[in-house]
Amino acid sequence: MNQPIHRCGVQFGFDWPIRVYYEDTDAGGIVFYANYLKFFERARTEWLRACGVDQRGLAEQSGILFVVSETAVQYRAPARLDDLLVIASRIERLGKASVEFAQEARRGDVVLAAGTIRVGCVEHATLRPVALPSSVSDALRREPGLFQQGMSTTTA
Amino acid sequence: MNQPIHRCGVQFGFDWPIRVYYEDTDAGGIVFYANYLKFFERARTEWLRACGVDQRGLAEQSGILFVVSETAVQYRAPARLDDLLVIASRIERLGKASVEFAQEARRGDVVLAAGTIRVGCVEHATLRPVALPSSVSDALRREPGLFQQGMSTTTA
Amino acid sequence: MNQPIHRCGVQFGFDWPIRVYYEDTDAGGIVFYANYLKFFERARTEWLRACGVDQRGLAEQSGILFVVSETAVQYRAPARLDDLLVIASRIERLGKASVEFAQEARRGDVVLAAGTIRVGCVEHATLRPVALPSSVSDALRREPGLFQQGMSTTTA
Amino acid sequence: MNQPIHRCGVQFGFDWPIRVYYEDTDAGGIVFYANYLKFFERARTEWLRACGVDQRGLAEQSGILFVVSETAVQYRAPARLDDLLVIASRIERLGKASVEFAQEARRGDVVLAAGTIRVGCVEHATLRPVALPSSVSDALRREPGLFQQGMSTTTA
Repeated sequence: MNQPIHRCGVQFGFDWPIRVYYEDTDAGGIVFYANYLKFFERARTEWLRACGVDQRGLAEQSGILFVVSETAVQYRAPARLDDLLVIASRIERLGKASVEFAQEARRGDVVLAAGTIRVGCVEHATLRPVALPSSVSDALRREPGLFQQGMSTTTA
Repeated sequence: MNQPIHRCGVQFGFDWPIRVYYEDTDAGGIVFYANYLKFFERARTEWLRACGVDQRGLAEQSGILFVVSETAVQYRAPARLDDLLVIASRIERLGKASVEFAQEARRGDVVLAAGTIRVGCVEHATLRPVALPSSVSDALRREPGLFQQGMSTTTA
Repeated sequence: MNQPIHRCGVQFGFDWPIRVYYEDTDAGGIVFYANYLKFFERARTEWLRACGVDQRGLAEQSGILFVVSETAVQYRAPARLDDLLVIASRIERLGKASVEFAQEARRGDVVLAAGTIRVGCVEHATLRPVALPSSVSDALRREPGLFQQGMSTTTA
Repeated sequence: MNQPIHRCGVQFGFDWPIRVYYEDTDAGGIVFYANYLKFFERARTEWLRACGVDQRGLAEQSGILFVVSETAVQYRAPARLDDLLVIASRIERLGKASVEFAQEARRGDVVLAAGTIRVGCVEHATLRPVALPSSVSDALRREPGLFQQGMSTTTA
């Protein structure tokens, strides 16, 4: 299976490889821009999994979901069919009920797309914000990439 | 909002227009074949809606879902960006717990893709087959396109 | 076919209806956030079409594409299966080689998602920025919604 | 990166792992059926890549595309968020200008979806059928899984 392929240490905490298939491209011959949000989510999901966070278990047992509340993405250069990308991810801010990720899609040394994704923790039934389970926030705080950023833990 | 644009009478019971956007295409410059399944589903959904069947209500109040159990599609000619397609739909077989649709994607007189889609009625909690609610089967039986096909009502 | 369903005059120049289908939702029971970018693009495309801009013709005859260079979206409330949304669109800035749109997804009076989308005009072969064809910028300048915003025409 | 995780020898020639993400699911809580076509295509693509076939190179240098001309899929049991699936693939028939694949999506020993996918080789400019390049058909003929099936090479 996929494995995080390397760690950048100071800059980004987790790298995840993504191969570009036909399904990801559009008639312009390049990756359809909305699909970078899928790539970014796959990388966040695998990061959480690598940290021991079981999203489906959280949903089924605690009724807790992570939902994206804000995205901001810059598209700098196109990716094409068969390209092998790396999604580099870093936590920008760890709040009480949300996490903000900085993420980049790279091909070799070139950053093709870069963005910040804010994910909130909500109760499934009401979709209202709830505090991150301590199992999650503790797991994220243990990530080395986090502290090397001098990231501060803040509220909200 | 969209309206069914015409009825073919003898051949097909319900027509629904679909515009091709970038999101539907791939790097080959044509509509990605998996997306015809989306187009077909939009048309089935709108047909059910036109018949007075409220799928979300069925799910929330009766715990009943429609799930696709079988698809067979032939791709004959490509659709391209900005094409205006018509999805023509007909019921092939109305079973006790399933419905089989014949559907075509057309551009003008040209059939681009044609297929049959079998949809089963299941209980959401268990995903086990249950009989179609009579409100649904009665509504489908009232559809004129159905009987002009000499369609027989069968079991399963 | 779909028709713009109303115009808000002062606030938004173009409204486009979108129905939510299964394909748009995810296991959280709500519309998958990346799909709002598809909804927004459908609305922009239809606005351009309503203005007489033929994107496929531009691509085939002039080798000119519109590509999204930046997106920023806030997700405020979830949309669900069968919801009927309206995508309201307005031009924020008309540059020499780019257009910035403000767009909202609404259900009734509730804004579910709101964002700004920057679209650049590029040469297909090189994906390098080129000036908007005058046929496009003239058509957009004629849009009443534009000037009621006191929108200024700027460069870049 | 992903690696084929094992070979079934007699039954299937190539296995490829697929993780289920939110993007793959729908409001029914299960994988949206159209997405199995994407999973199947990823597995075929990786098989071709493992055989040394470079699809993008073929497109750019020889103007040759592979297009899906027919799909038939049975959906037997649902896949859910976070499931780890294996896509097992086998060549059913190797024609002069087309290849027919048998493919299954499995979770452990359970077959969730099974189908046959017919892929044609076409000239990009015209989308008309052309013979498979010998580099492709030779590579596929070398695959052991093929011959263990007693698969015969046929025309068309």
